[in-house]
Amino acid sequence: MTQTGASSGTTSAGSDQVLLFCDWLNRQQWYDHFRAASVPVAWPEEIQNWAAVRYAIGWNFTAEVLSKMPGLRAIASMGAGVDHAIGPGIIPHGVEVVRIVDPLMAQRMATWVMWAVINFQRKMDMYGKAQAERRWDKKIENLKPWDNGEVRVGIMGFGVMGQASARLLVAAGYNVAAWARTRRTPTPTLAEDMDANGGGAVASVEGVHVYVGRDELRQFVERSDILVCLLPLTPETEGIINGEVLGWLPAGSGVINAARGRHVDEAALIKALDEGHVAGAILDVFATEPLPPESLLWSHPRIRITPHVSSITDVPNAVAQISENYRRLVSGLPLLNVVNKAAGY
Amino acid sequence: MTQTGASSGTTSAGSDQVLLFCDWLNRQQWYDHFRAASVPVAWPEEIQNWAAVRYAIGWNFTAEVLSKMPGLRAIASMGAGVDHAIGPGIIPHGVEVVRIVDPLMAQRMATWVMWAVINFQRKMDMYGKAQAERRWDKKIENLKPWDNGEVRVGIMGFGVMGQASARLLVAAGYNVAAWARTRRTPTPTLAEDMDANGGGAVASVEGVHVYVGRDELRQFVERSDILVCLLPLTPETEGIINGEVLGWLPAGSGVINAARGRHVDEAALIKALDEGHVAGAILDVFATEPLPPESLLWSHPRIRITPHVSSITDVPNAVAQISENYRRLVSGLPLLNVVNKAAGY
Repeated sequence: MTQTGASSGTTSAGSDQVLLFCDWLNRQQWYDHFRAASVPVAWPEEIQNWAAVRYAIGWNFTAEVLSKMPGLRAIASMGAGVDHAIGPGIIPHGVEVVRIVDPLMAQRMATWVMWAVINFQRKMDMYGKAQAERRWDKKIENLKPWDNGEVRVGIMGFGVMGQASARLLVAAGYNVAAWARTRRTPTPTLAEDMDANGGGAVASVEGVHVYVGRDELRQFVERSDILVCLLPLTPETEGIINGEVLGWLPAGSGVINAARGRHVDEAALIKALDEGHVAGAILDVFATEPLPPESLLWSHPRIRITPHVSSITDVPNAVAQISENYRRLVSGLPLLNVVNKAAGY
Repeated sequence: MTQTGASSGTTSAGSDQVLLFCDWLNRQQWYDHFRAASVPVAWPEEIQNWAAVRYAIGWNFTAEVLSKMPGLRAIASMGAGVDHAIGPGIIPHGVEVVRIVDPLMAQRMATWVMWAVINFQRKMDMYGKAQAERRWDKKIENLKPWDNGEVRVGIMGFGVMGQASARLLVAAGYNVAAWARTRRTPTPTLAEDMDANGGGAVASVEGVHVYVGRDELRQFVERSDILVCLLPLTPETEGIINGEVLGWLPAGSGVINAARGRHVDEAALIKALDEGHVAGAILDVFATEPLPPESLLWSHPRIRITPHVSSITDVPNAVAQISENYRRLVSGLPLLNVVNKAAGY
């Protein structure tokens, strides 16, 4: 209990170590930021007393490392998603999971989504191909562009990322709707708001109709010329964009995925693209990452790929949130941005 | 004077013909729309009495065709720009020039500009190249993205296109400034607002500082990480983005041109790109269009090209505006969207 204020300076290691478990390229930057914020982080090899660890920060925890910490009280995800921790079903009973909810990350995502929507709508990749062939080709069939007000964008998942994307698309004049799995508020910021029975209303963005639940999914998909997936990955949403759902899309539609690769049945997507029913896909996430060199997705003429960069975690903001939760844990206060483990997000 | 109302049906040709002078791919569509709007348009080969023509609609008029119409009172440009008519200095004295001012075209432009800004900012072409090589490459140097609030976008030209682009970029959180050549209102909609002495204030968009005149150009360029050209082409703005101005840009900046090719000294731009001072350019317009196959621009690794499609004229809206001005001319009312021929826009 050495940490009760942010200004208490360096800490004595050992008495209250916090596990930092991560293999990211920039892991040392995280470590340094946590130390500067007076959070006594330690790499696995630096942990002196595993039984005393109450707080673990990381990405892709293993059952093995979690089993070493019988005193663990909370796990902090280093990103907005928690499927990497909850999905495998390895979180011990009674251990809370907290995640990052960062407006800056929402802005990064909304910006990537905006680019992807315009890139598909205005056929920018077609012009890129014409450039490679030194070919000036306006495409007479495009002389009347597909205007923003005529483009029905459908956003699946209406948390902070989905809402920020919807707001920006509405500002640009697009016809935007959203779909949420349940009626409860998707982005509680206090633990007490997060009871599994919900009771909150669906979030709202002016001008955006929100379809809710499986019953309204088909209606939502049928009105979406561009489908944007920003869902959390849970047992309920895994594989949700399957052959049936793709078939509900209007002919010539586009699919954009910046959530998790496993939301999309990749084989069904390739089939829909090959048949021409879906005209293009822009994917930032994949069932297997890094995407293996032999994947068919790389070279598909109607698929555009970015390497999971749509909304990278902002280190200073994430460290501030994770550190605040560390201080709350130490002080016995309720944690912020607690995940509903039953719902999976 | 057979046309005093929109509902007067088909017209008797000959008595009041309007020249339609245009070699665009979709020229017949324009012709049909004008006929449907009861404007008695005729191709050059259909004109029965050249001396009686008072109104000419077109693009790239020649001195020869204009010299055939001594009774000409007004020329209507088929687009937002009028440099194709005014630039050659062939408009007879006393002939008014009107242009299209269309919010839908401004939205098309703002959408293209938004795509171009994000495409440069988030290095999307780099990911495109990695995809072509089946290479998953997040680029560790980009793990901290360049966030919108840190990107200083500078918009040259603050008419309807520039203002719409600024508004959308501000909504997305970018740090936006603009530059206007003079202090007068750039987008009068009534002829009487358009006196050459100006008196209007510079247009404003909340959150956007507007630099004005040659004196403030350097200061504006030096604070622009991404320079977006949306100027009208006039003798004052031709070649304005030259080697000196490119040198004022911060190292690693981007150049976006959706106005006219002759705003940019293409050789100076290629030099700045080769030296690495300018990191990338996205060009929709060129000194010579169609861009010839042998142009160096096509294959430059830091140049992205679209074939003058950023804001295509909307035929129904343009026809409505040009037809309204025809009816005003016939009725002796002041024309709308009259160009100041001295200023050139």
